[in-house]
Amino acid sequence: MNTFGRNFKVTTFGESHGPAVGTVIDGCPARLALSVSDIQPQLDRRRPGTSPLASGRNETDTVEILSGVFEGKTTGTPIALLVRNRDMRSEDYAEIRDKFRPGHADFTYEEKYGIRDYRGGGRSSGRETVGRVAAGAVAQKYLAAQGIAISGRIVSVHNKISPQEIEQEILAAKAAGDSVGGIAEIVATGCPVGLGDPVFGKLDAEIAGAMMGIGAVKGVEIGDGFAVAGRFGSENNDQMTATGFLSNHSGGILGGISSGQDIVVRIAVKPTASIAKVQKTRDIHGNKVEISVTGRHDPCIVPRIIPVAEAMLALVLIDALLEQQKYR
Amino acid sequence: MNTFGRNFKVTTFGESHGPAVGTVIDGCPARLALSVSDIQPQLDRRRPGTSPLASGRNETDTVEILSGVFEGKTTGTPIALLVRNRDMRSEDYAEIRDKFRPGHADFTYEEKYGIRDYRGGGRSSGRETVGRVAAGAVAQKYLAAQGIAISGRIVSVHNKISPQEIEQEILAAKAAGDSVGGIAEIVATGCPVGLGDPVFGKLDAEIAGAMMGIGAVKGVEIGDGFAVAGRFGSENNDQMTATGFLSNHSGGILGGISSGQDIVVRIAVKPTASIAKVQKTRDIHGNKVEISVTGRHDPCIVPRIIPVAEAMLALVLIDALLEQQKYR
Amino acid sequence: MNTFGRNFKVTTFGESHGPAVGTVIDGCPARLALSVSDIQPQLDRRRPGTSPLASGRNETDTVEILSGVFEGKTTGTPIALLVRNRDMRSEDYAEIRDKFRPGHADFTYEEKYGIRDYRGGGRSSGRETVGRVAAGAVAQKYLAAQGIAISGRIVSVHNKISPQEIEQEILAAKAAGDSVGGIAEIVATGCPVGLGDPVFGKLDAEIAGAMMGIGAVKGVEIGDGFAVAGRFGSENNDQMTATGFLSNHSGGILGGISSGQDIVVRIAVKPTASIAKVQKTRDIHGNKVEISVTGRHDPCIVPRIIPVAEAMLALVLIDALLEQQKYR
Amino acid sequence: MNTFGRNFKVTTFGESHGPAVGTVIDGCPARLALSVSDIQPQLDRRRPGTSPLASGRNETDTVEILSGVFEGKTTGTPIALLVRNRDMRSEDYAEIRDKFRPGHADFTYEEKYGIRDYRGGGRSSGRETVGRVAAGAVAQKYLAAQGIAISGRIVSVHNKISPQEIEQEILAAKAAGDSVGGIAEIVATGCPVGLGDPVFGKLDAEIAGAMMGIGAVKGVEIGDGFAVAGRFGSENNDQMTATGFLSNHSGGILGGISSGQDIVVRIAVKPTASIAKVQKTRDIHGNKVEISVTGRHDPCIVPRIIPVAEAMLALVLIDALLEQQKYR
Repeated sequence: MNTFGRNFKVTTFGESHGPAVGTVIDGCPARLALSVSDIQPQLDRRRPGTSPLASGRNETDTVEILSGVFEGKTTGTPIALLVRNRDMRSEDYAEIRDKFRPGHADFTYEEKYGIRDYRGGGRSSGRETVGRVAAGAVAQKYLAAQGIAISGRIVSVHNKISPQEIEQEILAAKAAGDSVGGIAEIVATGCPVGLGDPVFGKLDAEIAGAMMGIGAVKGVEIGDGFAVAGRFGSENNDQMTATGFLSNHSGGILGGISSGQDIVVRIAVKPTASIAKVQKTRDIHGNKVEISVTGRHDPCIVPRIIPVAEAMLALVLIDALLEQQKYR
Repeated sequence: MNTFGRNFKVTTFGESHGPAVGTVIDGCPARLALSVSDIQPQLDRRRPGTSPLASGRNETDTVEILSGVFEGKTTGTPIALLVRNRDMRSEDYAEIRDKFRPGHADFTYEEKYGIRDYRGGGRSSGRETVGRVAAGAVAQKYLAAQGIAISGRIVSVHNKISPQEIEQEILAAKAAGDSVGGIAEIVATGCPVGLGDPVFGKLDAEIAGAMMGIGAVKGVEIGDGFAVAGRFGSENNDQMTATGFLSNHSGGILGGISSGQDIVVRIAVKPTASIAKVQKTRDIHGNKVEISVTGRHDPCIVPRIIPVAEAMLALVLIDALLEQQKYR
Repeated sequence: MNTFGRNFKVTTFGESHGPAVGTVIDGCPARLALSVSDIQPQLDRRRPGTSPLASGRNETDTVEILSGVFEGKTTGTPIALLVRNRDMRSEDYAEIRDKFRPGHADFTYEEKYGIRDYRGGGRSSGRETVGRVAAGAVAQKYLAAQGIAISGRIVSVHNKISPQEIEQEILAAKAAGDSVGGIAEIVATGCPVGLGDPVFGKLDAEIAGAMMGIGAVKGVEIGDGFAVAGRFGSENNDQMTATGFLSNHSGGILGGISSGQDIVVRIAVKPTASIAKVQKTRDIHGNKVEISVTGRHDPCIVPRIIPVAEAMLALVLIDALLEQQKYR
Repeated sequence: MNTFGRNFKVTTFGESHGPAVGTVIDGCPARLALSVSDIQPQLDRRRPGTSPLASGRNETDTVEILSGVFEGKTTGTPIALLVRNRDMRSEDYAEIRDKFRPGHADFTYEEKYGIRDYRGGGRSSGRETVGRVAAGAVAQKYLAAQGIAISGRIVSVHNKISPQEIEQEILAAKAAGDSVGGIAEIVATGCPVGLGDPVFGKLDAEIAGAMMGIGAVKGVEIGDGFAVAGRFGSENNDQMTATGFLSNHSGGILGGISSGQDIVVRIAVKPTASIAKVQKTRDIHGNKVEISVTGRHDPCIVPRIIPVAEAMLALVLIDALLEQQKYR
């Protein structure tokens, strides 16, 4: 289950402290102009080491196209994208070899697989998302040519809304050896009517699965989301005119199918689980212990999750678009 | 995309006013004791016509097992379950043949397929969930034998919490030709550690997709959901003891894998789109028109969505359980 | 794994002596004119009881469309097709409850599932192909509108080629309580260039899997098949002209992709495993026993396998056609 | 469709003359001891440049494990394997840029994708099988631990059977600027009873699809294959004893499910399409032209196809084995 999508199929691989991370895209349409310069900027938005608000790990995240592109164009064959890992301070993780970090996948991985690459979270590290962002960049190139644009923004961090307050909140949490959560919103404009399948493959179902499949996401809303629970139908229905809609409470999706309005998605992002504050936990031998997770961690993951969430929305939309084209 | 699941594969079929609705389950383990009496009670919980709070459509929803069961046990072959439609007053829907009902899939279906079974919403009707509930009942039978129990409850309707207030709210909306939304919570207990895949197939991602794939659901939360956005990491992490956890903010899932704690899911349910109140809309010829959706509709879908959401959670869990068994 | 196809997904269900057999088609394009009269004739070609050369089981195999068709056209939603079983003489099968019939799936089913619907072979009965033929008829309707026609013929039975000799051979085998094998050929004409995927999803790979997935088939050839093993490249290559090819040794497929020439497939069909002649076998308790399989069996399955093989080729081609349309 | 398998999912990527070829394996069980030394020997068997009977292209085919292995063991996460291309004489292929080589995928690729990496066949090159053989080696490591062994042999080349005659035949074809076809047989021993699904996912259907998905394969037989077409049922059925079978005409598969006997598969391999002899063809502008395919080609692909066919059989068997384990 390291593959996403049915038509534009993206398989990611790689661990935080292994030799490399990457992705293979199977099903990209042929004859799309594509080069490293389409992908690298998105990776640069995602990469660490660029802000005091983010992890200090220093990665250039230079992407190499291994296949599927010939003379500057996609050929319809698999596109393999590779990013070598460079700044791996595995010694930072010596302590966590034996202790389960609260809020992390350490315990559940150990129980599931009976083995765990404990260096930096291994496969469960946010570093896995390099492959998603790279694949998303390819998808966005294709979608842009169809007039579909995707962009994300921070809605709030620790309930604060203004940029200055958000920055303060993050730096204060960092200083305290703690972390904070927040909310992000991703919007797609220019989507045609008719994307999505009406039952299990509803466009909103695909989006919800894609978003909840990003580590740290604990909630997903489409359109007005949880606010609809307090509404009357007469308030919540998007009435129509001869040419459009009078509102967009539905977030651009009706009955699981895109309506042509903006697609609006919000995600709840939990505070980073890795904190320096001392916490109670267990070691792999079953002993009660304490842990302070040092190393280079983001005190708030919301800013860096945005390119990842944009990528995931792009993957859902290109998949639905190709699906729809089958029947034209 | 009328199939759900990779191991316990459920394909539903049927329209609201066609001859029948049903489901085919492919991948059910052999030798599970199974009879109609395991399935019918769940269908009875879902069916209309039983309460002044629900639609007056009168369906017995009698299920027939067409295959896959021999001498009272499953054989490992596909289990086809059939429910004939009976109380179809197609005349109720004459007006909506040409007008798009706000909040419904009418417009998007017409645009997607160029054809639409307008009788009672056709495939986009809630009646499609008969197949889900029937399949979920089979899944729940299997899960129960493994000690896993699933149950749902109404959290709120139109922001009211007590049963009396909820009933009043629904009846008042009905009297006003309107409808109300709400929130439901589904909990699974007894889940073993280790279910779910760590990347795109995270258990919470599968659950989110399953829940958002139910018509009328506009938001999904796992564990504390959107509340985590206002938390510090030190508040939100579930610290561990030698034998368990000190809290369950995560809702029983860590890194996409079940932790052995209760799995807690909440869904936001929009007010029923079908309301008698006059609304502005468009007809299939592009004219501006008004519509009042009469017929027999639920003024609040929250109570009847609960067995459906339980079924979807059961389908996710049995699928993850079978997946996990591959590697034992 | 009771589903075939990725785009035009066909799920069959039902046992030989259960209440019904049938199929659900998910992914059929909308607005295809479809009625029972498109499907019934293909079922009639497949059904038993019509010739001294075939099984005497008397089934009308009347098909009912349960969903997915509205006012004579497909709507894009799942098409469920149902055929009730009628002439089930379960008493014929009393003896085989405890004995494994040589050449049948009795032993392997028992070992795989630990349970087995022994009545007439249950799910492993040729009766399962009712669902395939029904689905294939829908596919053929769509393909025909695209100019693609599929037809099969008997190449040989027990190494005999002329119809008279073949009939004699079959009747002689029947009289002797024995059965005979043969070869069938299926040809598709009018296929456009470009169907099939170049690596694992080669069009010939899909065809081979589809054909070998029919019970009794033990070999599959595309184009000249095994004859190519004795050739020089200079004999076997299909040289080209400005507008076409000088030969069709390849059977219409190059590098896994259709070339626009006729697609030619041959299958080797084993002699029916059910024979009256006494054979050595084992019972379910592990005892050495003898068995004579009486009941109503086809002394040669080649004639009745042809509509099934045509259906499977149709399913492969429609699937590839829809796949290809994604990228147009 | 560059992915093979449902449980042990293998995705290959890479072109003959691009930067690299490789594979990503998703679904390999955790805790399998694995190192380069398990994979390299199989690649060495497949690689060119080692015999006068094979292509002179000189590749070391050195494999690198990029992910999924930690401290010498698999972790359950994706295993990415990379082989850089080295000896790429693209100038050899200048002439074939504009001309379609008879027997090759040049024409069909151009028609399907509207673009084609013409260097050495691009993705349709036999070089793609590097990824299959690497993945197959991992599968074989796992299967070996379960007692399942796979081995292939040449049955015949150009109808010759003895090694000396075969060598002579190949060298004579090479000298004549021609090529020859042949037959190979792959056998799996030690397979447990119960692998394979009874309908579309029959074990023999999966094998047939896997084998026909290898370039140059034009026919597949299971067990006695086409010979069964000339048999009586009484000759062809494998009668049973108290503990086993009296023969293995079925090739180890009954009703699509493994019987515990040896699994026997034969494939017909066409003569290499690339020959120096002058052939008639067409160029991309539609002109009638002649072509002589020079460069470094195998005059007979049968010897080098054997490790590939073994790999494919291993992939089918591990997939079926993991599938079966779901239900234990």
